[in-house]
Amino acid sequence: MAVLIAAPDRDLSVLLARIGELAPELDIRSLEQLSETTDIDFAVVWKHPAGLLRQLPGLKAISSLGAGAEHLLTDPELPPDLPVGRLAGARLAADMAAWLVARVIGHWRRFDQLRVQQNERRWQPLTPQSPPVVGLLGLGVMGTRTFQAFRSLDIPVAGYSRTGRGPDDLDIHFGPDGLKTLVSRSDYLICLLPLTQHTRGILNAELFKHMKTGSVLINVGRGEQLVEPDLIDALKTGRPGEAILDVFSTEPLPADHPFWNHPQIHISPHCASITHPREAAELIVASYRRVQAGKPPLGLVDRTRGY
Amino acid sequence: MAVLIAAPDRDLSVLLARIGELAPELDIRSLEQLSETTDIDFAVVWKHPAGLLRQLPGLKAISSLGAGAEHLLTDPELPPDLPVGRLAGARLAADMAAWLVARVIGHWRRFDQLRVQQNERRWQPLTPQSPPVVGLLGLGVMGTRTFQAFRSLDIPVAGYSRTGRGPDDLDIHFGPDGLKTLVSRSDYLICLLPLTQHTRGILNAELFKHMKTGSVLINVGRGEQLVEPDLIDALKTGRPGEAILDVFSTEPLPADHPFWNHPQIHISPHCASITHPREAAELIVASYRRVQAGKPPLGLVDRTRGY
Repeated sequence: MAVLIAAPDRDLSVLLARIGELAPELDIRSLEQLSETTDIDFAVVWKHPAGLLRQLPGLKAISSLGAGAEHLLTDPELPPDLPVGRLAGARLAADMAAWLVARVIGHWRRFDQLRVQQNERRWQPLTPQSPPVVGLLGLGVMGTRTFQAFRSLDIPVAGYSRTGRGPDDLDIHFGPDGLKTLVSRSDYLICLLPLTQHTRGILNAELFKHMKTGSVLINVGRGEQLVEPDLIDALKTGRPGEAILDVFSTEPLPADHPFWNHPQIHISPHCASITHPREAAELIVASYRRVQAGKPPLGLVDRTRGY
Repeated sequence: MAVLIAAPDRDLSVLLARIGELAPELDIRSLEQLSETTDIDFAVVWKHPAGLLRQLPGLKAISSLGAGAEHLLTDPELPPDLPVGRLAGARLAADMAAWLVARVIGHWRRFDQLRVQQNERRWQPLTPQSPPVVGLLGLGVMGTRTFQAFRSLDIPVAGYSRTGRGPDDLDIHFGPDGLKTLVSRSDYLICLLPLTQHTRGILNAELFKHMKTGSVLINVGRGEQLVEPDLIDALKTGRPGEAILDVFSTEPLPADHPFWNHPQIHISPHCASITHPREAAELIVASYRRVQAGKPPLGLVDRTRGY
């Protein structure tokens, strides 16, 4: 029995070394050293090569190496009844919450303007207005953690989830009308949704019409959730007034993409929160021990919902 | 009986209007309309004019309009037994915590570098290192709130207070050796101390020697706590590597001050957290009602400690 870890675009050295420390008895294989595959009963993958799953007839379960599983669920070779897990660790969620808090507060308190003033040797205190309303689309592990972080700073938060699920102490909207209401209340609208058939293209012209003038759209979900040409048009109307984007429909963002030098768009290269090799190693070992014991992997995905 | 509100450098219009709404029965006076002064039994002041206290023989108590009271305690005309209060509201502390979290996380996650990369159309993910250690000097209302905010993001925090007082669940150092230990552990060293005889000039060459190479000093306490020439020298050694300063020994910072264009110094014009007129109005009314009932004002200062 063996575990395959396949993530062609990642450097796995720290992850593999850490698994070796945590569970030296495990037979861990990577794509480079893959000859025998029939004894592999668990695989942890991220953007795996097409055709890989066909070579793994002995799988009892499979897991995404990250918090999203859409790259796995869209593989037509995924056996229909194979349990699919994902790794959404506490560090991943805390990093995301910290990144979002810093983006929102830094924008609200106008750190960019303070930099301009310093360059001009200009002393002009910028008094904070009342705290902004933060709207969270998506209330899973990361959305919940982000809600808690803003609440700890007395920043008002409201949330949206398709089904209405989320923390009991959060003001939650759900369903299509709930989405519009949440959007119309938000000074900062943050997308943390998983990519599913329901969320692909959800950030579009129709939704932007409900945003407040001068509000800020923040996308840290998936690039495919944003209709990029719609955003360019919407920014001309001021709804939203700015966009802070970490994910894009094509990554890396092509050098000639109009987002790069758009004055209302702030870009980061998909690094708001990244799976930590040491945390992932612990989760992989824990998930495999569950699978060995006949249990589902960690972060079991509801394949009907898509997350 | 009447209340004097004296803050020559502040626009008091919102504050006075709000007090009028909250407690229309109170006789509230400002410096502009000051003729009769003997019936004033409570004063709320911020950088009041010299000689003012002499004109107020009927005071039962006095309060700073802000969180610091040093401008009051250093007035030689302050009657020795007069109770002194200060206004440190929840909003003031939350704004400070939010500002500090955004400064630290934005620096840790290298938002400035992301901006540079965008300008160059360069896609280069910046992976976060392990969370930095935040060291808090001063564990009063604002220090405690700041500790809680960082903790909610899983950022390790340690604290220092002269006496060892502070939140039970915080790792607290105290006394001169404790100060050195805290400083030597901190990646971000935040000064939130009150200005007293013990803290004037506390951020000096001797302290900087204990800082980690490349660490960041953040001063949001009082400008007089920092020995400014010592900082210029220390930045040359990389301990600290950068400084984020909101307060200065002379404010506004003079146009020819060397801090303005120092590449390792980030300046904001004393606006990290500012008394909110609406919150201050509520606190002033509540404090005066206490004084009328024979109780000490809100935020009673221990005049021996100086805060």
